[in-house]
Amino acid sequence: MEYSLDHLGSIADRHIASLHYPTLAPGLFEPVKYTFTTGGKRLRPALCMAVYAALSGKAPEEIVSQASAVEMFHNFTLLHDDVMDRAEVRRGLPTVHVKWNTATAILSGDAMLSLAYEMLADGAADRFARLFAIFSKTAMEVYEGQQLDMEFESRDDVSVDEYMQMIALKTSVLIGCACSLGAEMAGAATDIAAKFYEYGLKFGLAFQMRDDWLDTFGDPAVFGKGIGGDILCDKKTWLRTMATAAAPAEVSAISGEKLAPAAKIEAMTTLYRKLGLDKACDEAARAYSNEAIAALEGVTMPDEAREFFGNLAIKAATRDK
Amino acid sequence: MEYSLDHLGSIADRHIASLHYPTLAPGLFEPVKYTFTTGGKRLRPALCMAVYAALSGKAPEEIVSQASAVEMFHNFTLLHDDVMDRAEVRRGLPTVHVKWNTATAILSGDAMLSLAYEMLADGAADRFARLFAIFSKTAMEVYEGQQLDMEFESRDDVSVDEYMQMIALKTSVLIGCACSLGAEMAGAATDIAAKFYEYGLKFGLAFQMRDDWLDTFGDPAVFGKGIGGDILCDKKTWLRTMATAAAPAEVSAISGEKLAPAAKIEAMTTLYRKLGLDKACDEAARAYSNEAIAALEGVTMPDEAREFFGNLAIKAATRDK
Repeated sequence: MEYSLDHLGSIADRHIASLHYPTLAPGLFEPVKYTFTTGGKRLRPALCMAVYAALSGKAPEEIVSQASAVEMFHNFTLLHDDVMDRAEVRRGLPTVHVKWNTATAILSGDAMLSLAYEMLADGAADRFARLFAIFSKTAMEVYEGQQLDMEFESRDDVSVDEYMQMIALKTSVLIGCACSLGAEMAGAATDIAAKFYEYGLKFGLAFQMRDDWLDTFGDPAVFGKGIGGDILCDKKTWLRTMATAAAPAEVSAISGEKLAPAAKIEAMTTLYRKLGLDKACDEAARAYSNEAIAALEGVTMPDEAREFFGNLAIKAATRDK
Repeated sequence: MEYSLDHLGSIADRHIASLHYPTLAPGLFEPVKYTFTTGGKRLRPALCMAVYAALSGKAPEEIVSQASAVEMFHNFTLLHDDVMDRAEVRRGLPTVHVKWNTATAILSGDAMLSLAYEMLADGAADRFARLFAIFSKTAMEVYEGQQLDMEFESRDDVSVDEYMQMIALKTSVLIGCACSLGAEMAGAATDIAAKFYEYGLKFGLAFQMRDDWLDTFGDPAVFGKGIGGDILCDKKTWLRTMATAAAPAEVSAISGEKLAPAAKIEAMTTLYRKLGLDKACDEAARAYSNEAIAALEGVTMPDEAREFFGNLAIKAATRDK
């Protein structure tokens, strides 16, 4: 078994490409297929299958339907989030509500959510009740995360704890869910599944912290997206909420001054550095990464599996793009 | 056991009112609660529980979670349909996307869909796999029905068969699903569950045909909604698709003439009557109602249950509002 994102991701990709959709209204499923052609690393299904293989010794393909269910759910949330956030581009391509329309985006997303439940059930047999409980709890948390994210837009008093809770709900719990579904399908004991959930959760937090860091301190030539986007739209990130707590007057001065974009990015970045937040953010990401790795201590698994999970967690906190 | 819509509907209402929602983002669930305070007959959960009681002899409350899951799903579809159709009023009150906003309506609807799956699972134990299969199939059909409905808006060549397929998917399969879930929870044999599914499906078609009839030929003083709304917006109803098949030139003349609303309603209604469609529509509704009743022949159940299902089917096809 080859523990690599590329290998495991391609197993999920092939499965998703082979799905048969209902045929009465094909127009409903064109946007669904489209969301899978626009790229994506298939991180969640890859982690799900890696956990399964590491614990059971069996082929990852055995649970490709459950693993892909998580990706279907993830793409559903991206599709609906893009409508809610009025985002016009994702991964360099027009979003579904732009390419089709809002009604189609809503309805195709609904179908993706129901498809995700179907894929979760496919071949899960007597494990389904457990899978379903984890998946349902996670789904509700992801919605709560998105709701909080939207509510934060109109609030200036978001604390760093609130921000961490929001990103945990919006992004990390689904990675935790992917890992624990893999463990459940392998027939692992509850405490082992919980350790993998913890790994995924902390992995997700490390990943998100690094995202925040890169958006402000990344190398424009490497990062791909424009640097400073979060600052320009006054997004309540970890950096911003920490800066607001430490120097509220300076943050609101920079926000309120109606500076030109480059000047605003420059001013806020300088403030963040003055407060030591560049380092603190980097350290926090690494700390989550270490916690992810520590969560798997004492779990019996092949060396190459442990190495895979370890490297992935380190990369989440240290990547340059 | 009292076989009445009011009694059974109130059991569902009490259950839904007692639901506990996750607490991290209460703003997500205010719209969910709102959709249940704006009225509705709770037809689907009432039918589900009536079938269960008729076949098992047990109290309808035993499956109130499954019955209410269908209502949660139904309200989810109404909520999202209202966003897609840009409907501003439902049952005399502002729709969720008007009272809150589109993003909240999308996200709260998503949460309702996941809640519906959770409620379906609650206490279903080893019956869950069967329930889940019926429910998932139905959900996908409902989405297909809505997709076709939207596609029909921009088409002038919708046949009556296409229309019947669309309304079967959009509205009737969920009533069939509600009935067969009740039968499955009662432990009924597959053929008995299938008969109740057929009852619900035909019941739904009778109901929808009568809706089309009432919208054109109803008594304005009794019907409540304005008469002629379907004609004004050139909706592809049974009447319209039948008329287009029989007299295409006259239909498109009336549609194309840019008549004043009252004149357009008058002209199209006169055409429908000339073609005998008022009678034909009424007869088709009654025929579906009779097919619904016939589907239950040979099913053993208490007399008062059979009377309940029979009266309800007759009322679907003959009601004045």
